[in-house]
Amino acid sequence: MSHSLTSVFQKIDSLKPQFFSRLTKAIQIPAVSSDESLRSKVFDKAKFISEQLSQSGFHDIKMVDLGIQPPPISTPNLSLPPVILSRFGSDPSKKTVLVYGHYDVQPAQLEDGWDTEPFKLVIDEAKGIMKGRGVTDDTGPLLSWINVVDAFKASGQEFPVNLVTCFEGMEESGSLKLDELIKKEANGYFKGVDAVCISDNYWLGTKKPVLTYGLRGCNYYQTIIEGPSADLHSGIFGGVVAEPMIDLMQVLGSLVDSKGKILIDGIDEMVAPLTEKEKALYKDIEFSVEELNAATGSKTSLYDKKEDILMHRWRYPSLSIHGVEGAFSAQGAKTVIPAKVFGKFSIRTVPDMDSEKLTSLVQKHCDAKFKSLNSPNKCRTELIHDGAYWVSDPFNAQFTAAKKATKLVYGVDPDFTREGGSIPITLTFQDALNTSVLLLPMGRGDDGAHSINEKLDISNFVGGMKTMAAYLQYYSESPEN
Amino acid sequence: MSHSLTSVFQKIDSLKPQFFSRLTKAIQIPAVSSDESLRSKVFDKAKFISEQLSQSGFHDIKMVDLGIQPPPISTPNLSLPPVILSRFGSDPSKKTVLVYGHYDVQPAQLEDGWDTEPFKLVIDEAKGIMKGRGVTDDTGPLLSWINVVDAFKASGQEFPVNLVTCFEGMEESGSLKLDELIKKEANGYFKGVDAVCISDNYWLGTKKPVLTYGLRGCNYYQTIIEGPSADLHSGIFGGVVAEPMIDLMQVLGSLVDSKGKILIDGIDEMVAPLTEKEKALYKDIEFSVEELNAATGSKTSLYDKKEDILMHRWRYPSLSIHGVEGAFSAQGAKTVIPAKVFGKFSIRTVPDMDSEKLTSLVQKHCDAKFKSLNSPNKCRTELIHDGAYWVSDPFNAQFTAAKKATKLVYGVDPDFTREGGSIPITLTFQDALNTSVLLLPMGRGDDGAHSINEKLDISNFVGGMKTMAAYLQYYSESPEN
Repeated sequence: MSHSLTSVFQKIDSLKPQFFSRLTKAIQIPAVSSDESLRSKVFDKAKFISEQLSQSGFHDIKMVDLGIQPPPISTPNLSLPPVILSRFGSDPSKKTVLVYGHYDVQPAQLEDGWDTEPFKLVIDEAKGIMKGRGVTDDTGPLLSWINVVDAFKASGQEFPVNLVTCFEGMEESGSLKLDELIKKEANGYFKGVDAVCISDNYWLGTKKPVLTYGLRGCNYYQTIIEGPSADLHSGIFGGVVAEPMIDLMQVLGSLVDSKGKILIDGIDEMVAPLTEKEKALYKDIEFSVEELNAATGSKTSLYDKKEDILMHRWRYPSLSIHGVEGAFSAQGAKTVIPAKVFGKFSIRTVPDMDSEKLTSLVQKHCDAKFKSLNSPNKCRTELIHDGAYWVSDPFNAQFTAAKKATKLVYGVDPDFTREGGSIPITLTFQDALNTSVLLLPMGRGDDGAHSINEKLDISNFVGGMKTMAAYLQYYSESPEN
Repeated sequence: MSHSLTSVFQKIDSLKPQFFSRLTKAIQIPAVSSDESLRSKVFDKAKFISEQLSQSGFHDIKMVDLGIQPPPISTPNLSLPPVILSRFGSDPSKKTVLVYGHYDVQPAQLEDGWDTEPFKLVIDEAKGIMKGRGVTDDTGPLLSWINVVDAFKASGQEFPVNLVTCFEGMEESGSLKLDELIKKEANGYFKGVDAVCISDNYWLGTKKPVLTYGLRGCNYYQTIIEGPSADLHSGIFGGVVAEPMIDLMQVLGSLVDSKGKILIDGIDEMVAPLTEKEKALYKDIEFSVEELNAATGSKTSLYDKKEDILMHRWRYPSLSIHGVEGAFSAQGAKTVIPAKVFGKFSIRTVPDMDSEKLTSLVQKHCDAKFKSLNSPNKCRTELIHDGAYWVSDPFNAQFTAAKKATKLVYGVDPDFTREGGSIPITLTFQDALNTSVLLLPMGRGDDGAHSINEKLDISNFVGGMKTMAAYLQYYSESPEN
């Protein structure tokens, strides 16, 4: 280890009480972005973070106003929380790294089943964990970037890169208007950014650190079948009219089989073939079907082998049927023939699927299936929204630096993972800033990010900060961008 | 026409202003049984009706307390509205006819789209209609029995039968506890009843009077498929777990085809064959596919021929898929994999389908279909409730008397119809009192019973009362029961 990192790591250890204190103050602000009545708390938390940035020597701090929250919304003229832009350093001879994080959190109430007050950080050194809403998602990682700056400063070491922050307060509510801001600032505030690092995901499991180089996209569809002009009574009309729900079951039932195989022609052909190099990445990843079963609380896995599970989660498309709008959905029994039903399903997309082509295949499939029913009802299938997949090169300079940093801190090479879900902002950063993006998770797979008793292991908090520090150091020393 | 009926009919015409006034007073009481906050109004209406009975000379009037409304209910200790029992006449030499009606109504608000205040009776003599909530369902027909007694009395004619009333206030909310009351009073208050007449349904169309001799039953099922222990995120788990919704689409999709054909083995064999005598009843019924299309506001009829439509509505079973509980059902897009879903469907039953045997066939079918999927999820299908079909002999003494009465009043033979829906109390009366039941509708098929702008044609009101009077007269003269 270089002398500079040794002393920074020592400071990360010795400043721990200060970092705990900062985190405690942040967690106690219930910055729930989805709860309109708590919007002022989200602003309070933005203010707290800007104060921390200021105290730690960040400059050019901007609280960017994103305007009024667009509908649907109950509170008129509700302001969106600010995006916090700031810099630490602006040396043209150094590389510039943009770090993204979010300071808003998911809702949490003691009554949901928390063991302790969710907005009061519990630090249990004996058990080695911290518990509280936002501790792992994403307040802990966000503050860690500031902590890392403090550690460098305290150690007397020069900070290896110019740091730019982009901290938002609406991630848990769709990152409204962030896309526009990134595109707008690409040649403004973000000009000169060489790399983007996002610490807002998790290790695959609980033991081995990971670096994440891919995310699936998501195309969300609805098939709308309409027949009668209003809902009908099944006693009077059952057996004499063509029921939209009966047709919908046929169309939805034709999309995918119980083994998860998508039955829409042409999709398989769009999926990038598995290369030997990619295949090799799966071999050493620590994961098993038991971990999947533990996560689902069931034995409903479609595969037994680790590689099959991970590939179907990360690099193959999947089709899920989410529900039906317009039909009876309550408890009990209602004898209704729904007049107009919306079948909701989505396809997780992977390289090299083209969203437009996919939509056209989906529509063609649904139209053909419906036509084969010879039903007098009307059917159409439409895209509700799409978000593209993202895959990075896990062998590029950023990933190489982060891999070396992980090995230094944890003593093992990280697993290179993808995720099945989507973080659409990742692709926006990559495309708008024309840089590589690294997903550098701090917490573990069992942190319960959106669940009760959200936690972050203290060893991950400390190890995460050290990994961030080493990653910035190694990346700064890398010959390429 | 006998002299006695001529003078009764004259009195029905001349007492019209009095009948309008009685109906106006009744309609202005918003006796909505499903609205707990209006329960006192239901009681007010019961009191009003008992006063009318008393004024018209009914005796032995009993407001039968049915106790506290069972759950689910929001208001604790909410009393059920009383069943009004009363008699007019108790001459052992006369036949005794029980008439059933209900004084509660469906909800109605001006904002729903009514042209006028729903609880203010509009009598439009120019257009020939009366409009207001309950006017046709069932306050108008219920009061008509009292009006008919008034007309006999005013004409000086002897009332031809002993009349017993059973007027309830919970019909629109499941006729709670009425079954028990009927069974309990079968050898009590209802002892000696020779026939039951229910005036609580409608002509098939708008021109031709009908008598109704059959109702379908209803077996309501849910297929429950459960997999993961909680809802999952489709990004993380899509493609790697067996999704209950995907299995459910296969099971629900296997029940019935888009042409309405039930695909469950063994059901067809249970359906009573069509006899020539029954078939002949359909030939003259006034109905067409255009009327069905008008009612559904669409061209979604499965059949073009009148006979096919009516037989599939009345004498063949049908299977409707109502919806899914536990899945996403709102507007928009939610990327959930529902963990436990309840597919709701029902089968309208007809002679000679046995409910228990049907349930066993349904379960066998669903179990076999699910098994063929080889899914790791769990599946079971259960009956939520069943209500038996009812068919009467349309050539018996009551129907013959009612047919003659209809011909006298309207100048045409009535169509003999069934209904696709269920009025479970019909079968209870038939079985508990061991009598025949006649369904004698007053209103027309377009009255909008549960809809906005509920109406009753004045000609149907007057013609209906005359038909009631003549039916009682002719039935009293019939040699058989």
